[in-house]
Amino acid sequence: MKIDVLSLFPEMFTGVFNHSILKRAQDNGAVSYNVTNFRDYSLNKHKSVDDYPYGGGAGMVLTPQPVFDAVNDLSEGKKRPRVILMCPQGERFTQKKAEELAKEEHLIFICGHYEGYDERIRENLVTDEISIGDFVLTGGELGSMVVIDSVTRLLPGVLGNDTSAPMDSFSSGLLEHPHYTRPAEYKGMGVPDVLMSGNHEAIRKWRLKESLRRTLNRRSDLLNEKDLTKEEQKLLSEIKREKK
Amino acid sequence: MKIDVLSLFPEMFTGVFNHSILKRAQDNGAVSYNVTNFRDYSLNKHKSVDDYPYGGGAGMVLTPQPVFDAVNDLSEGKKRPRVILMCPQGERFTQKKAEELAKEEHLIFICGHYEGYDERIRENLVTDEISIGDFVLTGGELGSMVVIDSVTRLLPGVLGNDTSAPMDSFSSGLLEHPHYTRPAEYKGMGVPDVLMSGNHEAIRKWRLKESLRRTLNRRSDLLNEKDLTKEEQKLLSEIKREKK
Repeated sequence: MKIDVLSLFPEMFTGVFNHSILKRAQDNGAVSYNVTNFRDYSLNKHKSVDDYPYGGGAGMVLTPQPVFDAVNDLSEGKKRPRVILMCPQGERFTQKKAEELAKEEHLIFICGHYEGYDERIRENLVTDEISIGDFVLTGGELGSMVVIDSVTRLLPGVLGNDTSAPMDSFSSGLLEHPHYTRPAEYKGMGVPDVLMSGNHEAIRKWRLKESLRRTLNRRSDLLNEKDLTKEEQKLLSEIKREKK
Repeated sequence: MKIDVLSLFPEMFTGVFNHSILKRAQDNGAVSYNVTNFRDYSLNKHKSVDDYPYGGGAGMVLTPQPVFDAVNDLSEGKKRPRVILMCPQGERFTQKKAEELAKEEHLIFICGHYEGYDERIRENLVTDEISIGDFVLTGGELGSMVVIDSVTRLLPGVLGNDTSAPMDSFSSGLLEHPHYTRPAEYKGMGVPDVLMSGNHEAIRKWRLKESLRRTLNRRSDLLNEKDLTKEEQKLLSEIKREKK
């Protein structure tokens, strides 16, 4: 996969792209990242990329020309790339969207930076508008790093065994059960006996029950979306009785 | 405000903390960022920070000692800091949470990195568990950057006028209306006439209507949460009629 990013602050990406899984994914050849300062495409003599909004008002607006020219220049393959605009008005990013994007050959991310975007960019260039949540960020850079990280993890050959299990809350549709590691006692705090019992069936059941308990307490919306097995339904009834 | 981050990959933060608003906020004295590698606190002879999970299974779990010792060492003020764990099981991050955190004097972020967290860290050290959304990331680093960016923007004296308006979708409870800037025609694409009319009242009304239209089409949930004015109700009825 090829991932291009258009940003006015390319150096923001260096630390993130050069560590951990994202670095490994590049070293593997699974992905290549390329960050372009679209200011370089400005035909304006001051190399400016934004201008005042028609109709007045505060704030600046990214002008179409540098963004259109940069995207066209980077879209050289046979297949049209997905052109992703990071913005608060976009579709909420989810794991499902990450899985969809992971199937593409070429992604281009457009990151505005406190400016608005000229509407013609949205309407005639962009294929996907994505928001990572209902909060205000300085620019699209952090959002695009989030999307790139979650997509890269899904590419074939990127994750080893050491990195798979604990963070993968959303694949099962339940939140993770609690984890414990050594020491068995730390500052007077212990570890549930069952985890030390060596009884694999009891451990499996405890973990499933605690996953259900945490999901019920924190994200009951996830339970509504999930088809529960008979065992899960039984454990959930137990948990509800225990709460009373 | 003082912001500490515990991470095994401190260099990931350099680019983000040293550009744009986050850099300006530090130069202003509004905030200071400090990233600590909590591996330095490990008393283990191999400086390890994780271990196998009790009860078996894949993945590694962050052991309590280095995290407890690092947080205690960094908590030197009179007031106990907010200790924030970035994890998929946490409370969903919102602009309201950003506003709450922006009132604190000291935040400490704990970033795990594909490992799970020993439950005793959650139960006895952490004050807030935060998730930025329902997607899987390699670690807590990107999430904590997102939270830090949105909190820093809210600190007094950080934002100038140039940075205020266009991205602030969530303060009005509606998505932003479309923006346009020069040129008036680009590759055959124009700008709505009303924005060139100089009629301020007509422009205000068009923008409000387009905000409502976009919110209705993309995030109707936001309309349910908002107290609409009479004018907004009227425009919304117009939009609904136009759709038919």
